[in-house]
Amino acid sequence: MKSFTFWNYTRVVFGLEAEKELPSYIPLLGKKVLLHYGVGSIKKIGLYDVVVKALKDAGVEWLELGGVKPNPRLSLVHEGIDLCRKEGVTGILAVGGGSVIDSAKAIAAGVKYEGDVWDFYAGKAQPKETLPVGVVLTIPAAGSETSGSSVVTKEEGQLKRGITYDILRPQFAILNPKWTLSLPWYQTACGISDMLAHVMERYFTTVPHVELTDRMAEGVMRTIIHQAYRLKENPDDIDARSEIMWAGTVAHNDLLGTGREGDWTSHGIEHEISGIYDLAHGAGLSIVFPAWLKYVLPKRTEKIAQFAHRVFGVDYYFDNPEETAREGIRRLEQFYRDMGLPVRLKEAGIDGSRIREMAEKTRDGKRPVGSFVQLSTDDIEHILTLALE
Amino acid sequence: MKSFTFWNYTRVVFGLEAEKELPSYIPLLGKKVLLHYGVGSIKKIGLYDVVVKALKDAGVEWLELGGVKPNPRLSLVHEGIDLCRKEGVTGILAVGGGSVIDSAKAIAAGVKYEGDVWDFYAGKAQPKETLPVGVVLTIPAAGSETSGSSVVTKEEGQLKRGITYDILRPQFAILNPKWTLSLPWYQTACGISDMLAHVMERYFTTVPHVELTDRMAEGVMRTIIHQAYRLKENPDDIDARSEIMWAGTVAHNDLLGTGREGDWTSHGIEHEISGIYDLAHGAGLSIVFPAWLKYVLPKRTEKIAQFAHRVFGVDYYFDNPEETAREGIRRLEQFYRDMGLPVRLKEAGIDGSRIREMAEKTRDGKRPVGSFVQLSTDDIEHILTLALE
Repeated sequence: MKSFTFWNYTRVVFGLEAEKELPSYIPLLGKKVLLHYGVGSIKKIGLYDVVVKALKDAGVEWLELGGVKPNPRLSLVHEGIDLCRKEGVTGILAVGGGSVIDSAKAIAAGVKYEGDVWDFYAGKAQPKETLPVGVVLTIPAAGSETSGSSVVTKEEGQLKRGITYDILRPQFAILNPKWTLSLPWYQTACGISDMLAHVMERYFTTVPHVELTDRMAEGVMRTIIHQAYRLKENPDDIDARSEIMWAGTVAHNDLLGTGREGDWTSHGIEHEISGIYDLAHGAGLSIVFPAWLKYVLPKRTEKIAQFAHRVFGVDYYFDNPEETAREGIRRLEQFYRDMGLPVRLKEAGIDGSRIREMAEKTRDGKRPVGSFVQLSTDDIEHILTLALE
Repeated sequence: MKSFTFWNYTRVVFGLEAEKELPSYIPLLGKKVLLHYGVGSIKKIGLYDVVVKALKDAGVEWLELGGVKPNPRLSLVHEGIDLCRKEGVTGILAVGGGSVIDSAKAIAAGVKYEGDVWDFYAGKAQPKETLPVGVVLTIPAAGSETSGSSVVTKEEGQLKRGITYDILRPQFAILNPKWTLSLPWYQTACGISDMLAHVMERYFTTVPHVELTDRMAEGVMRTIIHQAYRLKENPDDIDARSEIMWAGTVAHNDLLGTGREGDWTSHGIEHEISGIYDLAHGAGLSIVFPAWLKYVLPKRTEKIAQFAHRVFGVDYYFDNPEETAREGIRRLEQFYRDMGLPVRLKEAGIDGSRIREMAEKTRDGKRPVGSFVQLSTDDIEHILTLALE
C-alpha cells in the first residue's frame, strides 16, 4: 500500500425527497448564488422550479447561467467568471450532471485567480482558493458531485483537460434518484460506463498489498454491472436507479483509490476522442477500455485474470490465467454491447484518419502516460487501432 | 435503500512516515493544545517524543493529560474538561487508540456545554459545538479516528454508553501502521474483532436493495479476516498491519452504513459485559456475536446464509439455506478461536450470575433493542445464556 492523504468533506444528502434539505444547505454558498445548469432538461423535469423555490426559501439573492453542454466549454466558463465578478457572487449551485458541475468548479476557481483559469488545466498553476460549490445531481456518471475533479474543453485546439484538487470538492451534494428516471437510456448507459471506468482505472494498479481497496472496488463493479442489467430491463426501477446513483459517487469519491496508484490512460485517450468528435464520454470509454486491456494483457495477466474471476465470475484457469483474463475482457465487451454502447470506433462513426493525432495529443508532448503499463505514442496508436473495428 | 446523509470531513494522512505531516495539521487545533493519551505505551514506543517535537515545530502552546484506560472513564473526562476550561485550551490532540480518542471527544464536547457531559451519553442533550480534535492513531480497532462516535463509562452504576454525532468527527487523523507493530497479539486480535463487528453490525439489516454497501462490506470483511490470519502468522508483517489499520477506519467511517439500518445490539450487549467485568471490548464481541447470530438465525436465515457464502466461501445449499448459515456462524467462531479470542463467557472467566442484570441494562428500561430482529429482555438473556459455555 502506498502512502496517501484522503479528505472528502462533501456533505451528501441522498433520498427520494433529498431536495427538501436544500434550503438548509444553500447558506453554505453565501448570500449571492449563481445557479448554473445545462441546456434546459432541468426545466423539463420540473427540477428548476424546485431549486428556485429552495433559493427563495433560503433567503439568498441569486442569478443564473444556463447553457452548459456535454464536454463543458472554456468560453462559458470565462463568461461565468466575468458574471460572478461583476455581480459579486459568493457561491455556485450546480444543477445537472458532471458537465455542469465541472463547469461550476472551473468558474469557482477562476473567480479567485488573477490569470486565465485555463492555466490550471494546462498545468501552469494550481488553484489555491475557490468559491464554494453546491450540487443537485441529475446524472449519475462523473462522480463530480463529491470529487475534486473538473474536466473542461478549450475550443481552440479541441483540448479536453482534467484537474483534481481537494479544494474543488463541492460543499454539498443533493442526490435524489427520482430525477434520474427521465434520463434517456443511452445517457444512462454512458453514465454507467463512466462510473465503471472510474473504478477500473483505480483497480488496475501494480501497487501490491491493496486487498482492501481491491475487494471494495470489485464489489462496486459487480453492483454496477448487476444493477445496470436490472435498469436495462426496467428503466423505471427506482431501487436500481438508487444503487447506480450512489455507486457513481462512491466510484469517484477516491476512497477506492486510497493507497493505490491508478492508471488514467483510458480516460486520457477517451478525452482526445471526445475532444475531437464530441462523442459522449461514456461511449468513448466503452470503446477504449477493452482495447487498452487487450493491449496490456500480456504484461499484466494476473491482475486482469483477477478482475475476470472476481467481477465477472470467470473460472480461474490455473494452467492458463491468460485465458481467464481474455474471457474477462470478452465479458466486459459483451456488457457494453448489452447496454447499447459502442465498443469500436467505427460503430460510433469514427474512422482511423486521426488516430495518430489522438495518440500524440494523449501524450501531450513528453508527458509519461500510464502506470499499470507505461505507454508510448506508438502504443496508444496500437490501442486505437485495436479499437477501430 | 433508505434515505441518508453522509458527512465525513476528517483529513486522513496514512503511511509509514505519516507523522511528518503532523506539524502542518496541528494548527487546526488552535493555539493551545491538550495532548491526551493513555497509560504510557506511547512513551515506550517513542511516539510521545515524536508528537512533542511536532507540537514544538507547529509553534503552539500545549499541556498534557495522560492516564486514559480502556473503557474510558467519565471521571477523567470531567478532569479534562476542568483543565481545558482553566487553561483556555483551543483543541485536543488524542494520541492512542479508541479509548483515548473517545475520551478526547467527550472532553471536547463537554467544554462547550454548560451541563454535565454525561447528559449526552444519557440521551438528555445533544452536543451543538465542540473543540476541534486531532488524532495520532496507535490501535486499529474502534474506528474512532474518523467516526462521530464516542463511548464512555460512568463508574457509578458501571454504565457504558455511546453516542454518535457528525460534529464529533476529528479534524484530522494520522495513521502510521508502524506504531501498531508493537501491539501485543491479544490487543491486535481484540481490535480486529471490534472492526469486524462494526462491519457486521451495519451488514445485518432488513433494509432491501442495498447491494452496493452489502458487497463493499463483504469485501472489507473478507480482507479483515484474510489479513488477520497473515498477521497471526507474522505480527511484524507491515503490509498486513497497513491493510488492517485502514480497514479499521473504513469499517466505521459510516460509508458502509449508508442507506441501511444497522443493528447495534451486539455492541450494546457487549457494553454491559465489559462495563461490569472490564473485559476488552473485542473479546466481549467475539463472545456475543456468534450467540446473537445463532439466536436470530431462524428469522433471518437468508441474510446470514449470504454472509456465510460471500464472506466465508461456504457453499450455498439451495435446498437448505439454514445449513449454509449455520456453517457461516461456525466459521466465524473458528476465526475468533484462531485469533486467540474467547467465544464463551466462561472462557473469559465470567459466570452466569449477572446475565439477567446485563440483559436488563442492555434494554436500559424500555428502549427497543435491535432492528435486524427486535429483542426483549428475555431474548437478550437467552443470547447471553447461549454465550455462557
